[in-house]
Amino acid sequence: MNRFVARTLIRSIIDGGNHCRHEISTAAMENPWKIVGLLRTYQKVGGPGGFYWTRTMSSVTPGPMTSSVAEKEERVEEKGEEWKKSDQTTMVSSYWGMSRQKIKRADGTDWPWNCFMPWDTYEANLSIDLTKHHVPKAFLDKFAYRTVKLLRIPTDIFFQRRYGCRAMMLETVAAVPGMVGGMLLHLKSLRKFQHSGGWIKALLEEAENERMHLMTMVELVEPKWYERLLVLTVQGVFFNAFFVVYVLSPKLAHRIVGYLEEEAIHSYTEYLKDIDSGAIKNVPAPAIAVDYWRLPKDATLKDVITVIRADEAHHRDVNHFAADIHFQGKELSDAPAPLDYH
Amino acid sequence: MNRFVARTLIRSIIDGGNHCRHEISTAAMENPWKIVGLLRTYQKVGGPGGFYWTRTMSSVTPGPMTSSVAEKEERVEEKGEEWKKSDQTTMVSSYWGMSRQKIKRADGTDWPWNCFMPWDTYEANLSIDLTKHHVPKAFLDKFAYRTVKLLRIPTDIFFQRRYGCRAMMLETVAAVPGMVGGMLLHLKSLRKFQHSGGWIKALLEEAENERMHLMTMVELVEPKWYERLLVLTVQGVFFNAFFVVYVLSPKLAHRIVGYLEEEAIHSYTEYLKDIDSGAIKNVPAPAIAVDYWRLPKDATLKDVITVIRADEAHHRDVNHFAADIHFQGKELSDAPAPLDYH
Repeated sequence: MNRFVARTLIRSIIDGGNHCRHEISTAAMENPWKIVGLLRTYQKVGGPGGFYWTRTMSSVTPGPMTSSVAEKEERVEEKGEEWKKSDQTTMVSSYWGMSRQKIKRADGTDWPWNCFMPWDTYEANLSIDLTKHHVPKAFLDKFAYRTVKLLRIPTDIFFQRRYGCRAMMLETVAAVPGMVGGMLLHLKSLRKFQHSGGWIKALLEEAENERMHLMTMVELVEPKWYERLLVLTVQGVFFNAFFVVYVLSPKLAHRIVGYLEEEAIHSYTEYLKDIDSGAIKNVPAPAIAVDYWRLPKDATLKDVITVIRADEAHHRDVNHFAADIHFQGKELSDAPAPLDYH
Repeated sequence: MNRFVARTLIRSIIDGGNHCRHEISTAAMENPWKIVGLLRTYQKVGGPGGFYWTRTMSSVTPGPMTSSVAEKEERVEEKGEEWKKSDQTTMVSSYWGMSRQKIKRADGTDWPWNCFMPWDTYEANLSIDLTKHHVPKAFLDKFAYRTVKLLRIPTDIFFQRRYGCRAMMLETVAAVPGMVGGMLLHLKSLRKFQHSGGWIKALLEEAENERMHLMTMVELVEPKWYERLLVLTVQGVFFNAFFVVYVLSPKLAHRIVGYLEEEAIHSYTEYLKDIDSGAIKNVPAPAIAVDYWRLPKDATLKDVITVIRADEAHHRDVNHFAADIHFQGKELSDAPAPLDYH
């Protein structure tokens, strides 16, 4: 089923829209878990010309503060119960009128995530060409290409074939460029009173998607203290370096990201090889991945790495496209941004 | 009609989902222009058990590069034709597979915006209490309150009752805190391998909403060169100052924004008074505002200022709520973020 349609069905059901039997049954036939479970939170009400579902709401209930957030996050995320954790630890602030919708998953359990909602989930487009490569011609292209190739050397030496750890660490870096680019375009739009052409949103979507890759990898690999320390250092250096590069030359910045994504595709392909060869155990997919990419319940690590690799291929195309626009002496806002591009 | 339902209907129609006659006609009855026009881009196709709409796609067509972007933006935005501008000036980059969906508006004209899509639009909740005020008790509360009151003095002196200009200038500042907060929470989530509880998205949504206020005001007021210069300076100072404050004390940062929004509500209320008294002409609403807030076609400046004021009231609540969470010694991720809160 088209991911837009799936998103729309889920969202429209959650939002209590009017729907005919045909629509729901069609969706349910194709992938029952997506729809049927969600309906359980809705009350069926008779109405002229059909029936509709009304949402049952529940405000966040008060509870005692538990141990440190870091501990909670780790404990909680292992169980995939982010929402329950919040529910237990958050006070009611009825004065500000904030409440959390009670949304259920297919199996009748509560929707456990606050960081993404059912309508943010999608089915990765696995048909994307993984072999695309931008042949460096201009000086800046070659500079970007060499830089990325150079950056791979220490990475290869440090991680070798520990691809789980490697992926987790690299996603902490991969989620930075989209945020830096989106923020700078946002500020530029404000300074110049100009539209963005949708690029702010497109780059922020990329950053969020990369962050979700990290949230998934964390379920599979427990970062060690020196790895956490390394992330601190690398983020400090990379954020500032990329910030400066983007200010000086957005076309170089986007080209670098395009090539970084090409390398990411290579790494994930090697990761998949090791899963196939049995060198890496093909464990069950974490709950967060099953929900985020709408994977079947019996999905495995291999399925997760496959959809993450497809995401990286999409980011490669978006960033090379952005670089191409700049290389033609144009502004990103001259081209409609690829929104919702997965 | 519930704004979620409207969003869903529009999105599901655009996304080519399955829909029964009942659903479309219900929506059309309540607000025909939203739905009917959109259907014109879709081909009705017979199918078992019902019918569905297929989306007609069109890729971006190549064209010559025109004059400077700033000039284009101004000229184009006056006509509300952001998309057509892009369409004329963007090259095909079929190699990267980027194309722009052809989406039509109610009156059969092309959807002119790239910076937001029909499913990003909403109907502002005008029932929100505009009088809510957080009484400063703790030292940081008082400090935040005094700071905001102090900042108002030069603003009042500079702008006096030129509320159009004042609103435009203030929105260039109001769109900064959400972006800074969202970015810092994003980086923190990456560094600590922790979930965000949805707060990254909630704060970025706030920033985008404030930026859309600016894009609307720009249609009404032409910024002068010294105002553009002032925006440059103010953004440079405010971005860095707020960045430091948020790093040192997120609770102070959110409280300051809460009070800034209270002041914004006051300013917009004064703006409305001047419109009622005739001191400010109640001109027709800009095209971008009609589309973004789903206003009737004959909406006026008064309608626009009313929905913007409602948005500010929502941001006030979100930021005071965030500050309250911190004042209770908790992390934002302990509380589910109010997503899609308008």
